[in-house]
Amino acid sequence: MKTFNLAVVGATGLVGREMLKILEEREFPVSNVFLFASKRSEGEKLEFCGELLPVHKLQRSSFRNIDIALFSIGSELSKKFTPYAVESGAIVIDNSNAFRLDSHVPLVVPEVNPKEIIKHKGIIANPNCSTIQLVVALQPIYDLVGIERVIVSTYQAVSGAGWQAIDELEEQSKAYFQKQKLERRIFPHQIAFNAIPHIDVFEDNGFTKEEMKLFHETKKIFKDDKINICATAVRIPVFHGHSESVYLETKKYLSVEKLKEIYLQTKNIKLVDDIQNAKYPLAIMSETYDAVMVGRIRKALDTDNGIHLWVVANNLRKGAALNAVQIAEELITL
Amino acid sequence: MKTFNLAVVGATGLVGREMLKILEEREFPVSNVFLFASKRSEGEKLEFCGELLPVHKLQRSSFRNIDIALFSIGSELSKKFTPYAVESGAIVIDNSNAFRLDSHVPLVVPEVNPKEIIKHKGIIANPNCSTIQLVVALQPIYDLVGIERVIVSTYQAVSGAGWQAIDELEEQSKAYFQKQKLERRIFPHQIAFNAIPHIDVFEDNGFTKEEMKLFHETKKIFKDDKINICATAVRIPVFHGHSESVYLETKKYLSVEKLKEIYLQTKNIKLVDDIQNAKYPLAIMSETYDAVMVGRIRKALDTDNGIHLWVVANNLRKGAALNAVQIAEELITL
Repeated sequence: MKTFNLAVVGATGLVGREMLKILEEREFPVSNVFLFASKRSEGEKLEFCGELLPVHKLQRSSFRNIDIALFSIGSELSKKFTPYAVESGAIVIDNSNAFRLDSHVPLVVPEVNPKEIIKHKGIIANPNCSTIQLVVALQPIYDLVGIERVIVSTYQAVSGAGWQAIDELEEQSKAYFQKQKLERRIFPHQIAFNAIPHIDVFEDNGFTKEEMKLFHETKKIFKDDKINICATAVRIPVFHGHSESVYLETKKYLSVEKLKEIYLQTKNIKLVDDIQNAKYPLAIMSETYDAVMVGRIRKALDTDNGIHLWVVANNLRKGAALNAVQIAEELITL
Repeated sequence: MKTFNLAVVGATGLVGREMLKILEEREFPVSNVFLFASKRSEGEKLEFCGELLPVHKLQRSSFRNIDIALFSIGSELSKKFTPYAVESGAIVIDNSNAFRLDSHVPLVVPEVNPKEIIKHKGIIANPNCSTIQLVVALQPIYDLVGIERVIVSTYQAVSGAGWQAIDELEEQSKAYFQKQKLERRIFPHQIAFNAIPHIDVFEDNGFTKEEMKLFHETKKIFKDDKINICATAVRIPVFHGHSESVYLETKKYLSVEKLKEIYLQTKNIKLVDDIQNAKYPLAIMSETYDAVMVGRIRKALDTDNGIHLWVVANNLRKGAALNAVQIAEELITL
């Protein structure tokens, strides 16, 4: 079996560490894995398949002999370093926002549009976490009856904002009970016991960039500029797992029974929908399941073709690291 | 000035205590206030205007000489005791779900439909918390350009489920950090660091009763069976303050600028909408403001007449106790 030299760029971050775990869990055919991060992390060691691998400082020359580079660093650093990786002959799977809407870069969710991968010119973009779980849940519906519009409100975990954000929720929660001052470094307001309708920066149209990612990325992934997407993205005091309240209208009628049947047959979707027994997807379940969980499926009351869903997934895994590794898996079968 | 004998029924509950505070704050013209609760609370004393008032056991004979009875007990107890109150000549303002959809009972939000009060036959119903803040935010829009449809996802605080629910979130949060087992009594699942799309019981159509309250009550309050309401009600780990992600479509065009202007002129609405400075309504602000807060106002991207709002209010005050006292204030001017 052919094996590959992999680089994990941003290896010490939450997503980078998850990438390493997933490569190991899924037995990705690696020859060698090289870890890169900023100078600050140089010398750290991370475990992979029982070995401790050193973390190197990311530099222009890091990509010699690398086949696939999994990037999870900020957009600015991605823009700076991907050209060096591509120059060296590596294929980059980038988790940042840098190239997602670039018409030369495929934006891929393997369950939805795996065939886009073949068009890559050295870079494949991983969509934003909230987009990935949404399009995975929508895709069987889109394929069967078409989708006219989607209105989504998100309930997003702090882990999407990195280590420090997890610490901030923990520290603020503890300080709250000790009646101490709640310190802030990451979030624009107190996140403990609050809900903040503000993720990423605001754009001129009044939407946040996080909301616009859902808008643009969903259209690009479905190759459908006409699909109407409205989003409100909200950070809530949850550590792991993004939840989404999704309302959608199909082009043709689709019954709840039929949709459940289809979901049951869809790989990578876990139907959790037994309201009699209070079973529906929950953020805390996303630490156990890699599949995108869907439940609370019901027809809208006054609208033909309206359907409600509650969609939950692990934002670090399916929303980031797992999707990137799945892209790599598809890539090596080409 | 005429003064009134008031009964606060369910005085020791979260809403009952808030009613007492609000009667005092707003200098409601009382002769005497009588407090009632279950046998369990008999003998407790609660402060009102510097006096300690005893809590009596609620019974059939409790309502002699009472002019207005503010009820905040469960639906079943409301159904049992309101007839006794009405028999005794009291007017009941009931905070439970018992009579809200009864065609003989006005369902009133004083900012929206104060004139309904006059039709009462002894009982006036207070709407559900999530409905009240929604219709207050919608009303200026409804009056100006009409509303075709509303799609709302809620982010609801635990205090809506009473004292024990507040304790449960606190205890679970602490236990989480101490790596202890998280005990449950009130919520169907862990509420700490989670989001639960399940409030009140499920109905046959797959919606929860909480979601159906938004559907039925909004139609009744606007006297408009055609207004299309779709709701998803979600409990999140917030102590106080319900937030709502609201998408709506108006019948005629309304600009964001015009809507902001109107909100600025609307009593009991606080416009918090300065995204450049990260200002928008937050659940934690609801402990400071009694007004319904509205922000994140923006036009939908692909839909004519689509508008997004983020609506936050204090669920115990405007969502319950304050609205009830405001009804009483209107009532005594008749």
